[in-house]
Amino acid sequence: MATLEDIGVSALINILGAFAFLLAFALLRIQPINDRVYYPKWYILGKRTSPRNRFGVVGKIVNLDIKTYFTFLNWMPEALKMSESEIISHAGLDSAVFLRIYTLGLKIFGPITIAALLLLIPVNVSGGTLFSLRRDLVVSDIDKLSISNIRPKSYKFFIHISMEYVFTFWVCYMLYNEYGRVASMRLNFLASQGRKPEQFTVLVRNVPGASGRSISDNVETFFQKNHPDHYLCHQAVYNANKFAKMARMRKRLQNWLDYNQLKFERHPDKRPTRKRGFCGLWGERVDSIDFYKEQIKYLDRKLTLERQKILKDSNSVTPSAFVSFNSRWGAAVCAQTQQSKNPILWLTNWAPEPRDIYWKNLAIPFFSLSVRKLVISISVFALVFFYMIPIAFVQSLANLEGLERVAPFLRPVVEWSFLKSFMQGFVPGLVLKVFLYFLPAILMVMSKIEGHVALSVLERRTAAKYYYFMLVNVFLGSIVAGTAFQQLDAFLHQSATQIPRNIGVSIPMKATFFITYIMVDGWAGIACEILRLKDLVIFHLENMFFVKTERDLDKAMDPGGLDYPEALPSLQLYFLLGIVYMVVTPILLPFILVFFAFAYLVYRHQVINVYEQQYESAAAFWPHVHARIIASLLISQLLLLGLLSTKKAANSTPLLVALPILTLTFHKYCKNRFEPAFRRYPLEEAMNKDAQDRASESDVNLKSLLADAYLHPIFRSFEGVDLVEVKVEKNPDDVASSSPRSLSSPSPDQDHHLEDETTDNVQHYEVEPPHITYHYEFESPNNMYRYNVESANNMYGYDFQSHYHGYQY
Amino acid sequence: MATLEDIGVSALINILGAFAFLLAFALLRIQPINDRVYYPKWYILGKRTSPRNRFGVVGKIVNLDIKTYFTFLNWMPEALKMSESEIISHAGLDSAVFLRIYTLGLKIFGPITIAALLLLIPVNVSGGTLFSLRRDLVVSDIDKLSISNIRPKSYKFFIHISMEYVFTFWVCYMLYNEYGRVASMRLNFLASQGRKPEQFTVLVRNVPGASGRSISDNVETFFQKNHPDHYLCHQAVYNANKFAKMARMRKRLQNWLDYNQLKFERHPDKRPTRKRGFCGLWGERVDSIDFYKEQIKYLDRKLTLERQKILKDSNSVTPSAFVSFNSRWGAAVCAQTQQSKNPILWLTNWAPEPRDIYWKNLAIPFFSLSVRKLVISISVFALVFFYMIPIAFVQSLANLEGLERVAPFLRPVVEWSFLKSFMQGFVPGLVLKVFLYFLPAILMVMSKIEGHVALSVLERRTAAKYYYFMLVNVFLGSIVAGTAFQQLDAFLHQSATQIPRNIGVSIPMKATFFITYIMVDGWAGIACEILRLKDLVIFHLENMFFVKTERDLDKAMDPGGLDYPEALPSLQLYFLLGIVYMVVTPILLPFILVFFAFAYLVYRHQVINVYEQQYESAAAFWPHVHARIIASLLISQLLLLGLLSTKKAANSTPLLVALPILTLTFHKYCKNRFEPAFRRYPLEEAMNKDAQDRASESDVNLKSLLADAYLHPIFRSFEGVDLVEVKVEKNPDDVASSSPRSLSSPSPDQDHHLEDETTDNVQHYEVEPPHITYHYEFESPNNMYRYNVESANNMYGYDFQSHYHGYQY
Repeated sequence: MATLEDIGVSALINILGAFAFLLAFALLRIQPINDRVYYPKWYILGKRTSPRNRFGVVGKIVNLDIKTYFTFLNWMPEALKMSESEIISHAGLDSAVFLRIYTLGLKIFGPITIAALLLLIPVNVSGGTLFSLRRDLVVSDIDKLSISNIRPKSYKFFIHISMEYVFTFWVCYMLYNEYGRVASMRLNFLASQGRKPEQFTVLVRNVPGASGRSISDNVETFFQKNHPDHYLCHQAVYNANKFAKMARMRKRLQNWLDYNQLKFERHPDKRPTRKRGFCGLWGERVDSIDFYKEQIKYLDRKLTLERQKILKDSNSVTPSAFVSFNSRWGAAVCAQTQQSKNPILWLTNWAPEPRDIYWKNLAIPFFSLSVRKLVISISVFALVFFYMIPIAFVQSLANLEGLERVAPFLRPVVEWSFLKSFMQGFVPGLVLKVFLYFLPAILMVMSKIEGHVALSVLERRTAAKYYYFMLVNVFLGSIVAGTAFQQLDAFLHQSATQIPRNIGVSIPMKATFFITYIMVDGWAGIACEILRLKDLVIFHLENMFFVKTERDLDKAMDPGGLDYPEALPSLQLYFLLGIVYMVVTPILLPFILVFFAFAYLVYRHQVINVYEQQYESAAAFWPHVHARIIASLLISQLLLLGLLSTKKAANSTPLLVALPILTLTFHKYCKNRFEPAFRRYPLEEAMNKDAQDRASESDVNLKSLLADAYLHPIFRSFEGVDLVEVKVEKNPDDVASSSPRSLSSPSPDQDHHLEDETTDNVQHYEVEPPHITYHYEFESPNNMYRYNVESANNMYGYDFQSHYHGYQY
Repeated sequence: MATLEDIGVSALINILGAFAFLLAFALLRIQPINDRVYYPKWYILGKRTSPRNRFGVVGKIVNLDIKTYFTFLNWMPEALKMSESEIISHAGLDSAVFLRIYTLGLKIFGPITIAALLLLIPVNVSGGTLFSLRRDLVVSDIDKLSISNIRPKSYKFFIHISMEYVFTFWVCYMLYNEYGRVASMRLNFLASQGRKPEQFTVLVRNVPGASGRSISDNVETFFQKNHPDHYLCHQAVYNANKFAKMARMRKRLQNWLDYNQLKFERHPDKRPTRKRGFCGLWGERVDSIDFYKEQIKYLDRKLTLERQKILKDSNSVTPSAFVSFNSRWGAAVCAQTQQSKNPILWLTNWAPEPRDIYWKNLAIPFFSLSVRKLVISISVFALVFFYMIPIAFVQSLANLEGLERVAPFLRPVVEWSFLKSFMQGFVPGLVLKVFLYFLPAILMVMSKIEGHVALSVLERRTAAKYYYFMLVNVFLGSIVAGTAFQQLDAFLHQSATQIPRNIGVSIPMKATFFITYIMVDGWAGIACEILRLKDLVIFHLENMFFVKTERDLDKAMDPGGLDYPEALPSLQLYFLLGIVYMVVTPILLPFILVFFAFAYLVYRHQVINVYEQQYESAAAFWPHVHARIIASLLISQLLLLGLLSTKKAANSTPLLVALPILTLTFHKYCKNRFEPAFRRYPLEEAMNKDAQDRASESDVNLKSLLADAYLHPIFRSFEGVDLVEVKVEKNPDDVASSSPRSLSSPSPDQDHHLEDETTDNVQHYEVEPPHITYHYEFESPNNMYRYNVESANNMYGYDFQSHYHGYQY
């Protein structure tokens, strides 16, 4: 048991650690060489181009401006400067609402902390049971401030129970306000958006196959019949995993070609060469540029064949389609209604943003989805409760005595004392760490197997799984001794009233542990987050060894989005800790408050300067955040009930029974009141926005907006292929222009294009806005595909890479 | 413990009892005087008019035709004659699908019984544990046929477990087929229906009040804006409970007037008189006809004032409305989509059939609904688990010693031995019986408080509550000793694995009890059902004392519908018993089979000859039936798991764990696959039916169909008032024509009308089909109301009473 001084020392160490991280961050971020690590968002937005150059070559790498070293904490006020609406337009609603979780934490726990410190701590201290016990036995100073200090059967428990009521009502009140606020932010955000293809489009799954007719024909007929006034067009979804693999390979080759051509330009005297064999390690030495051109040509031919196969073969059309309507109203109606007599056919849903789609899962049939869900649910359950079994098995391999017995010839190696101590002291912990490091990735794979079709949903589902894991293994695992599996076994053999009692009793005893946890994982962990140590190292390593072209540099810089699958569950764990301890051991609350304030600053800075979101879900994760905080309230109430029942407070405890019921009712009410705003699109809104559109502009170009929005990524990758094929024969240097930025900032390449314009009609479309030349009338689905391919070809270079990032196949 | 012989004797008694009931039924039903009790359905359909008259006045009362006495069981083959499609058109889909539950029981338990008797009984008998025990200790002959007879740790449990698997798959297979069949029957039924107002109408609730504008204006504006192509018209809902009360009183007076006028017609020499005071008991003697006319006139004036108040006062318009669309597609879209940004405003749902609406609940606001649901959920929980507390309290009043102590002056009365034995021997049982008798009514009141707006939903919710009561108090209560409250207490203090174990162990021991239960409640109870003893007695009593007019006779005859709130739960209890015992004590199965077969016959007869459904929900109860059978499977699996774990069959028991998971998955799949057919209306179907309509007939008269379909019942009752007011001044006798049957079968009244036609323009509309003269264009909601009132007035007599029955206010 830690004393107050121990906690103080621990706090000091962690604060110093956090400051060390912050100092390191302050020093590193002003070095020009790190600029792309700490401000990638601005590079991506195009508002920051290259590091300041005042001090020559050295100045490009190290910051020689002494003045900037003295203002090293100025990122904090800077992070606070941007207003919420600016953040929304700068980084999207998801990020802005994510930051609101932290302010919600401050708003909830601020008043609660004050009330608890002023009211509960004096009550607890005056209890005085524990002062009479021997100091070194079970008592810590923290315990004297907690509910443990109250004598059994005391009437003071009435105060704790009433505070639990007051706090619960306060939390619910804040949650209600926040839910309403976020819901209206979401609706305003959706209402303020310009015309976007997802507003007009519905994803249709499980299209039934009629004999002798193609899926496309089916879709066309069905929607023309059942939505005659609103149906506009549709796009088929192809099962093109093989093609995608080839396209990825081609991209790699293209990159090598770029690299070699750049090299050749810089040293025109020496043509680069490589060996013909595997990875260029052996075989005949050939000219690199020629080699890659030849390889690309070969691959292009294969790609063309594959493309034709996909387009012709009706088996490669998956029974899904993106169906577009001529109004938001039409799309909203189709997304919310049941289409067919058989409710598992013609499943309609809002289409996710084009960049949000996870294409691979679009083809999964309904029945398979049910099976997948079952299998994954069982797997998650097993993972949460039995994950220690395989880990213990691997760890047991580090038991060298056993190994020696199995393989006696290893004796000399095993007896080597360094290896022995390494194996037995370090490996077991390492195995666990490695598992925990890969856990989010494992959970993400599970979510993908579950068959969700949007990246945003995948991340939310992964976050949910991670939360269960944390709840059982971090929260319950720390309170109740033993592995999760042992806990499960114990729970099965305990009565319904015994479980909260057993856990509740150990709750106050674990307060010091969780305070340390908050300081290590919360304070120091967040300071570590702002330093981006891993990204910094990886960026410089990549820069040193792999970055060959501009495109590679962009790729190395890519900061990724906010890591919801990890950030949300750990955030929710802090809410859980705060809510469980608010009545039991209120001294824990200030630590949580510091965490929320500090993390708010850090994440605000990161959102503004670093993260680039892959998709925009318009705060679709909020219902989960809300539900988890409600769940925390319920857990807190049950555990307090259990704790009090061991304190023999029989006259006061029954008062608590009503609280979980009220909390659940509140949750149900909130669910009805706000959740539809996150799941459905009200017709009133759709109609309003349609009317606005009709008033402001003609909808001539609606079809063109929709024509290629949900184009399958194979066409996007193919457009590159086709074009390059044409170009390569004329001017090999042109290839560098495949970087999308070459359009916005006129480069020598771009000038080159303009000169070529008379001879190369492809270039024509690159300079013109890509959406003007579409006046195609849809006659038959086959024609439409041809049209899509052609128009896609014409659009080469237009926002290609930024789209490409979104597609995962 | 009952021996096989005991069971045999009990079976014999019950079979004899059932035969006695059947014999009584056979004798009673062929008496002409009982004709209206046993064949009311045919009277209501108008296919049977009056008892056969061959033997004069006596023949009107007693059947003197000897031949018919010899064919007294011929109702059984007769009941089977009608085909299912005939039953659907004769009695509606609800009744037809209700009968399918019995055939489903036969289909499920038929093969299971054969397999269990052939396979499990020999296995159980060969177990032989119990033969070695002393006979009179715990063993009954039934137990020797049950799983109790198997030695612990025996490998024979593998057979039981595999049979549980096989039976579960069989039940699921049958359930899947049946769900699919019922779903398609429902869709076909809906598709084959003619034009009905509910197909075009949506019930909108929680219409927000805008300041300075009426609810009607709001509805008009909102739907014209958001459903511009589909909106047709709407009807406001009035809060008219006071008016309804007055209308009921007027109806009573009208009835007395009819009675007196009939009396006067029969004896024209003597004008009937009555006293002026309360209930005609004292006061001045006056002419009855004049008195009632005067009273009615007075009430009419009050009604007129009240009507004007309701129509003018915007406070009496509830924030609900029936919104009609010009196509089924438009209505389907509106019912399935979210209308407003605020998801608890403008709640849309399919309108129930007009006769299915429970008007009183239409005005409940959303927030109040949440609170009501919470309160009722808690109340139901309390009722199920603590209902014994008030009953025990009342029973304790019968404890005369206590009474004596409290009130010593009662001693002489109390000491009277007859009263004493009556009080102590009979009253406690009577109190419980009275409670159980009123239980369905209490549960119905609870459902009404919950705020459902359709009678069909009310009945389904009541059935659900009744099922919980039966499950806890009949099933669990019989197995585990003690009251439900004691069980609850025990459950809370037992571990999750201990509960099924404790219940599982006592399952086989209770088999004999349940066999007796099936025979008493199932066999004899069903035979009692066909006798309709209560209805018979009540009909004759009413006929003797209260029936004054033709309308009264119809009312006395009114058979009511199938009693779903009681019939469904007890049916589901039999499924539960069969499924729980199919592996444990298979000898129980033949008794269940007999029950299903016999009950099928009886209910088929009743459906064809007796019941008149109040509404048609198109088998909306099926998902509940399905879910309860699945729940029975789960209960059976858990209990078997508990039972086997006490048998130390550690090597086989874990095999069972997968079964509940598989069953739940199956349930989820079925829910997705079939339930939408019961909740939503697919657009494909709506579009098809719209297209058919458009092809076959013009939709000129759609507006007239909708114009008064959802007219609030106050207008319907008022139309009567208005008309009578006009008529009474001309011809008092006309009043009798307010019986709806007077239109279909030309009566003297009707002839009278036709003579009057030239002088009384009201009559004109009665003879013409009522829907031809509507060409009104909706200009403003106020006009519309006036229109409705007028048109309603014109339609007086048209199907008035049959509509009226459906409205409960």
